[in-house]
Amino acid sequence: MNNTAYTFGEIMALEQRYRATLVNSLGGFKSLVLIGTKSKAGTTNLAIFNSFFHIGANPPLFGFIVRPDSAERHTLANIMDTGIFTVNHVHEDFYKKAHQCSARYASNISEFEAVGLEEEYLQDFAAPYVKESRVKIGAELRERKDLSINGTILMLAQILYVSFPNQCMMPDGFLNLEKAGTLTCSGLDSYHTTNSIARLTYAKTDKLPDVISLKDET
Amino acid sequence: MNNTAYTFGEIMALEQRYRATLVNSLGGFKSLVLIGTKSKAGTTNLAIFNSFFHIGANPPLFGFIVRPDSAERHTLANIMDTGIFTVNHVHEDFYKKAHQCSARYASNISEFEAVGLEEEYLQDFAAPYVKESRVKIGAELRERKDLSINGTILMLAQILYVSFPNQCMMPDGFLNLEKAGTLTCSGLDSYHTTNSIARLTYAKTDKLPDVISLKDET
Repeated sequence: MNNTAYTFGEIMALEQRYRATLVNSLGGFKSLVLIGTKSKAGTTNLAIFNSFFHIGANPPLFGFIVRPDSAERHTLANIMDTGIFTVNHVHEDFYKKAHQCSARYASNISEFEAVGLEEEYLQDFAAPYVKESRVKIGAELRERKDLSINGTILMLAQILYVSFPNQCMMPDGFLNLEKAGTLTCSGLDSYHTTNSIARLTYAKTDKLPDVISLKDET
Repeated sequence: MNNTAYTFGEIMALEQRYRATLVNSLGGFKSLVLIGTKSKAGTTNLAIFNSFFHIGANPPLFGFIVRPDSAERHTLANIMDTGIFTVNHVHEDFYKKAHQCSARYASNISEFEAVGLEEEYLQDFAAPYVKESRVKIGAELRERKDLSINGTILMLAQILYVSFPNQCMMPDGFLNLEKAGTLTCSGLDSYHTTNSIARLTYAKTDKLPDVISLKDET
């Protein structure tokens, strides 16, 4: 394969949308989730994010990045007002509706209604889940960190509730997300299913990893 | 499908390793990269990360999370000492070697040598790339943010150089990472290839998204 290379100066000289598309592609495949919130006025909001990342398991914490000048601005406002939100995986049967949530709907419009996804309320939690999603998280904001480097915002949150299909749970706590039909994304607009290669055993310096085979795993 | 659900209290009551495995699974599929560094003493280091996330395109910025008590501690020390590092995608032909980089090798051992990956140096950049990787980024640290919430560290970095196979580049700047054979991961130890469903057009409130078809895309 022949390679193309760009230096920093060459990246900065690219046309703006081309550069955004390229730079968004560079990190590989990404987490893909819909974040559900409700405004103080009672309007629900649903926004698509691809920056969910693990922060810790004890307590269960994660982070994501918000761009305040985008369709994500209502998500930010609602979380700042209410402190809570939901995180919902995206599957092939509704990925176009999920993508459509990135359109800039007005603040009095619910993306649930606009794109045709159903609100679901679980366990007296005021933020809306996506009924069609098979892996759902309820979360509360723990900390907001404004990143002066470029005006984006890091949100740090704690997991309050999780729900997933029984058949995804492996005996060691691993969730088989392929069985749930969870998608991944790349760039700004590309959606993908996955095929498992293998799980590997915990790495030790004195031996090479083996493939994990668990009874319940197919 | 029947569902399993856990509340925060139930998650906290889980056995520690089971909880770590579960919570690491919840966010969906993740970016998978090897970060290459070199110590002041000249020992190279290679560590596997699954928290690469996009921060911005102008200038090109990304973030990742380091746990300072893990095999990642040498990566952190080397970046703090030298300011630079490389990010390298992982492919099926060397994913076991990539996983093996998470073993706790001593600081005078190079993971490149220990796992059998080849160092590559490009453009007078002192940090080592992974020769076997087909998508590579050279980067410099812009900012370190210690997250008091649980002692992990957010690293914010700027892209100085990128290299990828010519045939991955689409006319609009999108990189077809499936053509490069880039893998994704889930949980702590599960590796996956991907299958493209579609790319979708930029979402507008007045119409539903279409599938993007680009001449060069197969």
